[in-house]
Amino acid sequence: MSTIHPFDPLTPREIAKAAIITKREFHGTNLNFRVITLKEPPKGEMIPFLEKEHQGQPPTPRPSRAARVQVIARGPSGSNDLIEIIVDLDNDSVLEKKPLLGKHSYIDSAYMQAVEKACRADSRVQAEIQKLKLPPGATVVIEAWAYATDGMNDMSERTTMCWFYMRLLENEDANYYAYPLDICAEVSEKLEVTKIYYLPSSENERVRENAQPYDDRKIHSPELSEYHPSLRPEPRTTTKPYQVIQPEGPSFKVDGNHLSWEKWTMRVGFNYREGLTLHDLRYDGRNLFYRLSLSEMFVPYGDPRSPYPRKAAFDLGNDGAGINANNLQLGCDCLGLIKYFDGWHNTASGEPLKLPNVVCCHEQDDGILWKHTNFRTQNAVVTRSRILVLQTIITVSNYEYIFAFHFGQDASIHYEVRATGILSTAPINIGDKVGYGTVVAPGVLAPYHQHLFSLRIDPAIDGMANSLQVEESHAMPVNNPNIHNPSGVGYSTKSQIITEESGHDLDHSKNRTFKIINENKTNPITGTPVGFKLLPCYSQLLLAHGDSYHAKRSEFGQHAVWVTRYEDDELFPAGRYTMQSMGGEGIASAIERRKQEGTSWVRNEDIVVWHTFGSTHNPRIEDWPVMPVEKMVVGLKPVNFFLGNPGLDVAVSTQEKNRSVLVEGGSAKDCCRL
Amino acid sequence: MSTIHPFDPLTPREIAKAAIITKREFHGTNLNFRVITLKEPPKGEMIPFLEKEHQGQPPTPRPSRAARVQVIARGPSGSNDLIEIIVDLDNDSVLEKKPLLGKHSYIDSAYMQAVEKACRADSRVQAEIQKLKLPPGATVVIEAWAYATDGMNDMSERTTMCWFYMRLLENEDANYYAYPLDICAEVSEKLEVTKIYYLPSSENERVRENAQPYDDRKIHSPELSEYHPSLRPEPRTTTKPYQVIQPEGPSFKVDGNHLSWEKWTMRVGFNYREGLTLHDLRYDGRNLFYRLSLSEMFVPYGDPRSPYPRKAAFDLGNDGAGINANNLQLGCDCLGLIKYFDGWHNTASGEPLKLPNVVCCHEQDDGILWKHTNFRTQNAVVTRSRILVLQTIITVSNYEYIFAFHFGQDASIHYEVRATGILSTAPINIGDKVGYGTVVAPGVLAPYHQHLFSLRIDPAIDGMANSLQVEESHAMPVNNPNIHNPSGVGYSTKSQIITEESGHDLDHSKNRTFKIINENKTNPITGTPVGFKLLPCYSQLLLAHGDSYHAKRSEFGQHAVWVTRYEDDELFPAGRYTMQSMGGEGIASAIERRKQEGTSWVRNEDIVVWHTFGSTHNPRIEDWPVMPVEKMVVGLKPVNFFLGNPGLDVAVSTQEKNRSVLVEGGSAKDCCRL
Repeated sequence: MSTIHPFDPLTPREIAKAAIITKREFHGTNLNFRVITLKEPPKGEMIPFLEKEHQGQPPTPRPSRAARVQVIARGPSGSNDLIEIIVDLDNDSVLEKKPLLGKHSYIDSAYMQAVEKACRADSRVQAEIQKLKLPPGATVVIEAWAYATDGMNDMSERTTMCWFYMRLLENEDANYYAYPLDICAEVSEKLEVTKIYYLPSSENERVRENAQPYDDRKIHSPELSEYHPSLRPEPRTTTKPYQVIQPEGPSFKVDGNHLSWEKWTMRVGFNYREGLTLHDLRYDGRNLFYRLSLSEMFVPYGDPRSPYPRKAAFDLGNDGAGINANNLQLGCDCLGLIKYFDGWHNTASGEPLKLPNVVCCHEQDDGILWKHTNFRTQNAVVTRSRILVLQTIITVSNYEYIFAFHFGQDASIHYEVRATGILSTAPINIGDKVGYGTVVAPGVLAPYHQHLFSLRIDPAIDGMANSLQVEESHAMPVNNPNIHNPSGVGYSTKSQIITEESGHDLDHSKNRTFKIINENKTNPITGTPVGFKLLPCYSQLLLAHGDSYHAKRSEFGQHAVWVTRYEDDELFPAGRYTMQSMGGEGIASAIERRKQEGTSWVRNEDIVVWHTFGSTHNPRIEDWPVMPVEKMVVGLKPVNFFLGNPGLDVAVSTQEKNRSVLVEGGSAKDCCRL
Repeated sequence: MSTIHPFDPLTPREIAKAAIITKREFHGTNLNFRVITLKEPPKGEMIPFLEKEHQGQPPTPRPSRAARVQVIARGPSGSNDLIEIIVDLDNDSVLEKKPLLGKHSYIDSAYMQAVEKACRADSRVQAEIQKLKLPPGATVVIEAWAYATDGMNDMSERTTMCWFYMRLLENEDANYYAYPLDICAEVSEKLEVTKIYYLPSSENERVRENAQPYDDRKIHSPELSEYHPSLRPEPRTTTKPYQVIQPEGPSFKVDGNHLSWEKWTMRVGFNYREGLTLHDLRYDGRNLFYRLSLSEMFVPYGDPRSPYPRKAAFDLGNDGAGINANNLQLGCDCLGLIKYFDGWHNTASGEPLKLPNVVCCHEQDDGILWKHTNFRTQNAVVTRSRILVLQTIITVSNYEYIFAFHFGQDASIHYEVRATGILSTAPINIGDKVGYGTVVAPGVLAPYHQHLFSLRIDPAIDGMANSLQVEESHAMPVNNPNIHNPSGVGYSTKSQIITEESGHDLDHSKNRTFKIINENKTNPITGTPVGFKLLPCYSQLLLAHGDSYHAKRSEFGQHAVWVTRYEDDELFPAGRYTMQSMGGEGIASAIERRKQEGTSWVRNEDIVVWHTFGSTHNPRIEDWPVMPVEKMVVGLKPVNFFLGNPGLDVAVSTQEKNRSVLVEGGSAKDCCRL
């Protein structure tokens, strides 16, 4: 165990050990292990540890290894109680044990399958399906979704929504989202169907008494709606192969979870909820970020008609970016020389479960990094930009998200999100339109919805005491005797350092820039504090009304940039327990609480910056039946942190190394150079 | 001549011919040929031509070939008169001849060299240089700049500003911008030094009586400011080679200037001013854009102190993106299989002048295009995204710009601008700071400035009659008895079709979206007009005061999105003649004029959309001595134009084709697969 780093995810052995200690604690009660994950060490212990580690001194004492375990145990009254145990893995002991009253664990796929089965077996559901008079050969597909709070149910027990689709073709990869059925069902904790709804099929329809039978409806041809190659005509053949070779191997080095590349060093983490996390990021030995992670994601749908307000997913809190991470395939998900990282989770009975190839690490050429031609000498100097990509892809029912950190040789970081997959659909009368959705195939409505992400940035800009500075560019006044601006062309920056925990909005019209600075470290040349700036992704914030459950549950959607004091374990801006949450557990509530306590000072403190971004996704038909990626990018760049361009020492580009090939008239020539 | 397409740039033979016809017209007067370029054919003639061409019918009649020629001729009074001649190349005749009274041609590098020489030879300049007491071995470098109007000079003749620097090292590639001198000079049309200025060296200094001698100043070490590899320590060696191979050749086909790739077809154009232009862009045979081009670029500096308001460059109108296009080098500026296009310009005496390799065309892998995993079958389908890149790079004195159109298999277009090169600098007292610049090296101020680009989009969305639709996403009201929104989560779109020529601003907080639609063509499935949407680059607009010359001269900087009626030859949103322009010649003035004429109706008309974007560039020290690229991206995407994802037929990714290589622990293994 001595080679395990405090930031390393739990090893399989540690997972097994945590399960044994937990089972012992429960004296043989039958447990459903939902979570066995690293309880990250307190920052207060990590800072001296990392300091010594980077100075090459023996990094002792090592913070103890601890596991956060969550189990569902059958309670005395037959209830399913969620209980959290903190296990000290160094001392084989239980540090904490607390029932999570009123909280629900993230989606339990075994339970969801049981819900689906129970729903399908229900005689009223069967009768409703009969009444739909589906075409011969159609298979009903039931998709269980976490219930988004709408205030209509008691939230103390789990409630699950079942949405119905049909698969017209025998092929199990046929796109059943293309045929949403008119009914949906609500299922209780005890696997009873408590309600069946008829879905509205036009804008003005509010309550339906019955579903429409299918035998008098036109069913559109699968040709418009299938994406699986086995159900498509032959693909285009015009795309010629494109390969990446690195004859001398990759430029990165991996040692366990420690990654080094082009002056960057960091540690790769992974957990069931956030998926990929990054720790202790440094450039050329200088401390930049203590931790970077996607901290939450909220996908509320904009269709106001009941029961659609129940469609609103916290894809991290409810589903888990780690658990749903794809097993990435060589040559498909990543191109070139690929290093994969595996993740570890646990089975329901507490055994370690390998999640293979959940993160891929590779390099990409990124065009030109910098260039200048001296027009007097005509000498051009050009360097190409190489980036290091750490990518993970998740599938959450119909949707896919591709998350990637891009590291640059110029000390920049870009976080790219690509949304793809299949739109969530609802039925609509043929010929009808609604104001909150797009008809993507006859009878198929793709409702408007938003994707709101929260990128959690735990900075360590030359140390832990950092501040958030908001800078704007403003025209200088004219005709002001105290200000010299005779031609009216002057402009300057105005900046403010945020003193209290708070949320802020973007304003490109003022070039509003958010800088994370260290006021204790002055750049010796510019004379200003060293810093990194956020290059935000300009996005609309949450549209749901402030009083709605959607808004109360996703407080981070109120503002684009939040700054808070660092607190151990405060990782989730919509709260730790998002399943059927009622609101009041998010970042705004935490700030409000600390304001009242008088502990919300954030200037020159250990702070965390959270960036809310995403897209208001009003579907295009071009997003159907599978969506070309929609990219969103957030950046972090040094601003007066170094003494000059950090990529100045990147070697100039040469044909000798890059071996490009000249093309004439569309066919390759001069290939002998390869 | 029969194989020349009307959109083809003038051929060398046509350039020579235009010069001969022009010389004949001037009866032997000594002419300085500034421009011999294609006068693009009237759209009214091109539409029937293209229609027949695309239907495979003989495309007759072919619009006649014409050249726009501009010469400087010595006038009777010894003045240099700029005269424009339109030459009919089919009929060897002059169609038009008009003196361009009060207008100036773009920068004449021979003349600028003469200015530099005259300035250097001037005895007062020499005396001022002596007074500076430069260190031994220093070489004075004089950089001539176009004079940005500040209202202090009569603009009827050319005025040139000379900025002074020194080169400390013998090496001619040493970065002289690192040592800006305290003086500058103004030079007249007749090459006389009309004024010498002492540059201010602190914030409060308004008028200086003398320059500071250098012998009592600390001169910073070149180590902080050199970028040329011959002046740098050995570069980092950690970056391993990365090569792209396409064993079956590129996926594109080139026939003259006609380019086809993955369902895209287009014609590549090039001229001295805009550089790369694209014409007749179609996807899968459907008409999308008649013409795409970067139409202008304005770089005003924000330092209010005289004479700095004279620093404001129209990099297209004053300098020319075509003339200043780099001769791109295989393996350096572009990676992989590269097709180069040459451009043609003319010499001062009217001979054709080849501008080699000014555009590179190549493919890039762009990560994942779409992916979905059916969680029930665990079958994943993933396609990689290939893009076609058309790239051109320009050098404008200190700065470089990399312009690239990226075409996607999903019918998207992205226009990417990267700014790089060297910051323009000014002297500053050591230890001083100002509110409108960054000290990037001791004694070196990099003043704040803006880069404002105008992308001209001449749409042809399924035909020429198009409209601009502005759509926003708004929360639906709550507690309104006429609107069904019981949970407060509903939102819908509101849209407006623009009827009159006008400028509009961005608002991400409303998800404001600009769509170019064809109201005459309804998507049969969505029931809405077919369209393309603009994915804008969120940027601050012009900061200079509305009454300033900067603002009057760069009207396009007032708004982010403009819509105008199409007019032949209306290509430049700051006017055709930007050199020493006085304002009133830009897009806002054209709109105002047509509003008064009652001809500004733009709904369901042949329209042009102009997007203003850029950056407020408040330099970081990391931009010194050469700037890592700063990227700006604008997109165009189909919105309810097709019947589904246009990239649905892209073949799925396979390792067989992509040949990726597994890396373990940082060294390549399994290379045998290559």
